[in-house]
Amino acid sequence: MVERYIKEKRRMELIGLEIPVLSEEDNLGIEYLADLLASYPLKDGDIIVVAETLISKLEGNIVKREEVKPTPEAYRLAEKLGKPPEVVQVILDEAREVVKVGEGFIITETKHGFVCANSGVDESNVKDGIKPLPKDPDRSASLLREMIERKTGKRVGVIISDSMGRPFRRGACGVAIGVSGICALWDKKGERDLFNRPLKSTEVAIGDELASAASILMGESHEGIPVVIVRNAPVPFTDGKGKDLIRPKEEDLFR
Amino acid sequence: MVERYIKEKRRMELIGLEIPVLSEEDNLGIEYLADLLASYPLKDGDIIVVAETLISKLEGNIVKREEVKPTPEAYRLAEKLGKPPEVVQVILDEAREVVKVGEGFIITETKHGFVCANSGVDESNVKDGIKPLPKDPDRSASLLREMIERKTGKRVGVIISDSMGRPFRRGACGVAIGVSGICALWDKKGERDLFNRPLKSTEVAIGDELASAASILMGESHEGIPVVIVRNAPVPFTDGKGKDLIRPKEEDLFR
Repeated sequence: MVERYIKEKRRMELIGLEIPVLSEEDNLGIEYLADLLASYPLKDGDIIVVAETLISKLEGNIVKREEVKPTPEAYRLAEKLGKPPEVVQVILDEAREVVKVGEGFIITETKHGFVCANSGVDESNVKDGIKPLPKDPDRSASLLREMIERKTGKRVGVIISDSMGRPFRRGACGVAIGVSGICALWDKKGERDLFNRPLKSTEVAIGDELASAASILMGESHEGIPVVIVRNAPVPFTDGKGKDLIRPKEEDLFR
Repeated sequence: MVERYIKEKRRMELIGLEIPVLSEEDNLGIEYLADLLASYPLKDGDIIVVAETLISKLEGNIVKREEVKPTPEAYRLAEKLGKPPEVVQVILDEAREVVKVGEGFIITETKHGFVCANSGVDESNVKDGIKPLPKDPDRSASLLREMIERKTGKRVGVIISDSMGRPFRRGACGVAIGVSGICALWDKKGERDLFNRPLKSTEVAIGDELASAASILMGESHEGIPVVIVRNAPVPFTDGKGKDLIRPKEEDLFR
C-alpha cells in the first residue's frame, strides 16, 4: 500500500515591476535603474532580471538610422529579407558570422558569441532608431549588481534577459545574456537521484530558466514590466556569467 | 526630467510539492496523482506542472531490461556510445529518425516528434528498468486536468515537463511535452509595443517558459519535487497542446 500525502516543500515568488517608459534619448545610465531598485524593498538573495531593451536604452546603445551607410551586401540581403537596408547593416555590423539565411530573418553569431536571429537587433520598444544587444551584458549585469549591493547592503543576483528562438521547437523563450552574482550553468554531475544513484551528465541552464520564468511576467515589454524580482529561488550565489551559457562552435553538433 | 518610480505590477507564485517516492511497480495510474492534487487547496487558474518521470511511473511505462532484445545495430551503437545495448535498443525503438550521433549520446526525433538526446530515454529516478517518455503526453495532461477539474470544480491547466538540451546554448532547460487547458505557443503578432506600434513576428513558447520556471524548483527530481503549481501566471486558458511547440522538420533551418 502506497502512502498518500502531498505537501508544500518550497515556494518561489516572481514580482513584476513597472518603471517609467524611457526613451533612448534620456541617456540615464545604469545608475538610474540601480537607484530605482534600491528604493524597492529588496531582500537578501533576490535575483533581479532586467530586459535587455532597458539596458540598451539606459546605456544609450541605439543606432540612429540616418547615420547608417549600408554596404552593397546589406542592400542585396535587405531585398531578400524584406528589411530596411539600414537595419540589415546593423545586423551585419553586430555579427561575427552569418550562420544561415532564412525567410525574413538571418541567423548570425553575434560578436558576443550568441547564435540568434538578426544578431538580436530590434526596432520594437525603442522610440526611434535601431537597437542592438547591449555591448557587454555580463559587464552591465555586474555593474548593476555592484551598485545595488553598495546602495542597499543586500546580496543580489542580476540577469540581463533576451528572448530567442531555437531549432526543433517553435516560439521564443527567455534566455540570460548577462549574469552576475549567481550560477548561470549548474553542473549537477555527481548529485544523487531519487534512488540515491549519482546523476550522469546533467548541466542545467539555470540562468536561462530564470530568464524564461521572468519572461512570463514581462511579456514582450509592451506590458511595461522590464524588471522582475525572483525571490527564494534555490540557486547558488556563485560567480556565473552569461558567457557560460554559450556553446562553443566546436562542441556544437548543429553548426 | 524623467520621472522616478518603481511599483509592483504583477506577482506570480510557484509552489513546489512533495509526494511519496513512487516506484514503477506501484502501477498507480494518473488518478492517484489527481486524488493527491484534489486534496491540495488549488485555486482557479492554477497551472500544474508535472515531471514526465512521474507520469511514466504512474502509467507503468517502464521497459524491463531483461525483456529487451538488442539488434545488431543497437550493439554497434552501444559500443560507440558507451551505453548498455538494451538502453540503446529502447532509444532506437522510441525514435522515428536518428538526427545526429554525438559522443556518448544520439539526437533523435521521437515518435512524438520531439528532437532530443537519446529519445528522452532515461535510467535516473526509476528503481529499475529503462524509462521512455510518456507515450502520449498531451493525452496524459488532458486526462489529469479533467480528473482534477471533476474532483475540485476548479479550472486548471496542466503541463507535463521534461528537460532538454538545445543547439547553440549549453545546459538543459525545462520544456512542455504535454499541455492541456492553457495556451502552449502564444502568437503575439499584432499586439503593441511600448510606443504603440504593432509587434511583428512574436511567437512565445509560453508552455516551455512555464516548464522552465517549474524546473527551477524541481531540480533533477532528486529533491523530490515532481509537481509545481504556478499561481497567477498571465497565460490564456485556451486549448494548447505540447505538439504546438514542435517545429515541423520542413520549417527547420537546422535539419
